[in-house]
Amino acid sequence: MIASAIVRNIRDIVGAEYVLDSDLDRFGYSYDASFVPLFPANLPDLVVRPLTTGQVSQVMKLANEHNIPVTPRGAASGRTGGSIPLQGGISLSLERMNKVIELDEKNMMITVEAGVLTGDIYNLCARKGLFYPPDPASYKFSTIGGNIAEDAGGMRAVKYGVTHNFVMGLEVVLADGTVIHTGGKSIKNVTGYNLTQLFTGSEGTLGVVTKAILRLIPMPKYRNTLQLIFSSLDGACATIHQMLQSGVVPASAELMDRTCLNAISRNRKMEFPEKAEACIVTEVDGAEEYEIKKQAEQIEAIARKNDVIELRVAKTAQEADEIWAIRRALSPAVGALAPDRVSEDISVPRNEFPEIVRQIRQIAGKYNLAFAVYGHAGDGNLHPSILCDMSDPEQAPRVHAAVEEIFAATLALGGTLSGEHGIGITKQHYIKDALSEAGVNTLKAVKQSLDPKGILNPGKMW
Amino acid sequence: MIASAIVRNIRDIVGAEYVLDSDLDRFGYSYDASFVPLFPANLPDLVVRPLTTGQVSQVMKLANEHNIPVTPRGAASGRTGGSIPLQGGISLSLERMNKVIELDEKNMMITVEAGVLTGDIYNLCARKGLFYPPDPASYKFSTIGGNIAEDAGGMRAVKYGVTHNFVMGLEVVLADGTVIHTGGKSIKNVTGYNLTQLFTGSEGTLGVVTKAILRLIPMPKYRNTLQLIFSSLDGACATIHQMLQSGVVPASAELMDRTCLNAISRNRKMEFPEKAEACIVTEVDGAEEYEIKKQAEQIEAIARKNDVIELRVAKTAQEADEIWAIRRALSPAVGALAPDRVSEDISVPRNEFPEIVRQIRQIAGKYNLAFAVYGHAGDGNLHPSILCDMSDPEQAPRVHAAVEEIFAATLALGGTLSGEHGIGITKQHYIKDALSEAGVNTLKAVKQSLDPKGILNPGKMW
Repeated sequence: MIASAIVRNIRDIVGAEYVLDSDLDRFGYSYDASFVPLFPANLPDLVVRPLTTGQVSQVMKLANEHNIPVTPRGAASGRTGGSIPLQGGISLSLERMNKVIELDEKNMMITVEAGVLTGDIYNLCARKGLFYPPDPASYKFSTIGGNIAEDAGGMRAVKYGVTHNFVMGLEVVLADGTVIHTGGKSIKNVTGYNLTQLFTGSEGTLGVVTKAILRLIPMPKYRNTLQLIFSSLDGACATIHQMLQSGVVPASAELMDRTCLNAISRNRKMEFPEKAEACIVTEVDGAEEYEIKKQAEQIEAIARKNDVIELRVAKTAQEADEIWAIRRALSPAVGALAPDRVSEDISVPRNEFPEIVRQIRQIAGKYNLAFAVYGHAGDGNLHPSILCDMSDPEQAPRVHAAVEEIFAATLALGGTLSGEHGIGITKQHYIKDALSEAGVNTLKAVKQSLDPKGILNPGKMW
Repeated sequence: MIASAIVRNIRDIVGAEYVLDSDLDRFGYSYDASFVPLFPANLPDLVVRPLTTGQVSQVMKLANEHNIPVTPRGAASGRTGGSIPLQGGISLSLERMNKVIELDEKNMMITVEAGVLTGDIYNLCARKGLFYPPDPASYKFSTIGGNIAEDAGGMRAVKYGVTHNFVMGLEVVLADGTVIHTGGKSIKNVTGYNLTQLFTGSEGTLGVVTKAILRLIPMPKYRNTLQLIFSSLDGACATIHQMLQSGVVPASAELMDRTCLNAISRNRKMEFPEKAEACIVTEVDGAEEYEIKKQAEQIEAIARKNDVIELRVAKTAQEADEIWAIRRALSPAVGALAPDRVSEDISVPRNEFPEIVRQIRQIAGKYNLAFAVYGHAGDGNLHPSILCDMSDPEQAPRVHAAVEEIFAATLALGGTLSGEHGIGITKQHYIKDALSEAGVNTLKAVKQSLDPKGILNPGKMW
């Protein structure tokens, strides 16, 4: 409970209509897109929706003085519980800070407030021939602030990188309300520590990102999409591996296994060949038409050596959209296959991708669990999903054991717990396995230095 | 002075022959390639040259227990005093840690110890068709550890980025001797804060980098070099600006003004046209021969519109080397023009490059000082050098005033104090102008959290 005098203060700062405390509103801000249980609800005491950096600063100052937990929040589309207010206090929603401040075409940079939708940034830039590549599956409804907090990835990472590769500078409100600016529009900038990259991916635990300067690149003039269907998962894995080794760098290369194809068949009433065991959707792009033609031919030649049974090259933009629609619909389609889905976000060195897929299938067999395996095969980031019923007391322990084995296998191959979703609540139990006790202590020391009272997004990451 | 019992301990850890304390040795480790005065000498009490991470860890543990300052050091080729031991104590030289641990061709990554020369990394990778792009002017004799500490840039940043864009993971010994590992070979990795990027560019103040995993890219199959001579500096600036706006991204684009050309003429006994006021050396590269041909033609067409008076396209690799030799010899040639050279490392948003060049020339005129202006024009990073005699009591104040005005002009254009050399000693006086008091306090808080006793490279950055 926040003392009523403080609540009055906050209403004065942001305007009474932007401070919510009804049970219904508080419930609405208690969850995100992760698999963290809804009940018992993690209710904030207060939902605060500031419009300006100045308001965020004043709210943080008050919260810090009175030891009130603050959980920053974008669109709550995160998959690891990052925006869930675990200890009550304030849910600080940045959704009203949705202004595009400047599109600087000459320097190919855009400056935006944290609440702008990533998809809106993409579209605005695209109209000027500029390209903001990071494309988390949620990009149409997630905010750039949330993307920065989680260092969101996406399908284009294999060629273009993830969110942090495009963040040039930030405006951040620290725990005590201090406003700082990091980085800037200079391409080379080594003045002080790289706080821009420290805050990016810090999951709202070190400061509240209120503005960002993002780097853009010229929009590739040509792109094309290929859909390849294989009679074996090994053939699909080998195709991706050989493609990358041969120097073909696609804009994205997505893998789906048989279970995924079944889910899509059911969900979208479409047919795959009976023998289909895996599917790759890949996009090539470039500044010249012949370039993408050449890449498509190279991919085709490699696939032919690896059990491909159907190969479709999009002839029109509409066909390309159709192929991508399959991939984008995958997550809900898989989710519909079972009462629960425990989905992971492991990432391995690229050459270990076929090996981790093999090991995951072994683990599935060992624990007699149904798995759907899909992910960004081009960059080694995989989302194995266990299709299960966690309310079944016989199944749940097997699921937990399988998840632990997947993490152990991933780390043994030099991989990591999270490629693009963050640690949040759902993976905090395992972070020491990945970073060691000393590594986690280092994170804690940094956290302590920037948020000595521990009010920012408490209870997360470790 | 370090107590003799502790010195004995250190000798036991690293071997007596690798602990130096003669006056001559201590003097040899008292300076770097910056313009920090040699006298009075900044002598370390002890020079320690460990061979292993374990030894570094033990030395740090001792130093931390006994509050002994430790200044890490690579090849001491830094330009801002980063490796100068300002408070005595230990000069910790990583030069013996020079092993290449692994060249992982499949994942296109190399793992090296901190003391490996950057040029050796480049050559080793090049023999396998792989490319480590960052090329600070010192790359043949600077170490990768030093490059990481300073986040070194170079000429290829315009297309490929700087050191931090290629650092995937680090082994770091913290102030208290704890060894941690950050990042790794997974392309996507959001497990915990991005400590890899926090340590990169931290100038040896947060930890001692002992190993690094670096990302590589395929070596471009084709490259070519162009030398363009202009009858006006404005024409040269306009050419670079228009080139980038048109979408031509050269691998590098270097600018030199008339003073630079004079220095080279004198130093290398070569002639430039009488009307020459500026020169651009630029390299284009790509996977296809026609690509680089097309880029060269585009550059040529733009230059023709902007007062170009001589245009040379290298016909052979030897000719390309000859052109680059001019640029690489520039810094010593300029240095020979006057008793002192006060050289800066400012960086501005790319589109402000012509404007900052104009303002620098105005400042030179206002203070009646000779300037040489050169730099990485393609990425907005400029090295204006004031040719002066700092022992002249009439000149020195004018030089200081001019430097302050250059910094002020740079910051007013949204630029920064240092593009690639770091802050160290030589720019610490100005860091608050760039980052604000609150920004610098944030750096100090992070420093305090990782090095509570302040033993790591004390006296630097702020």
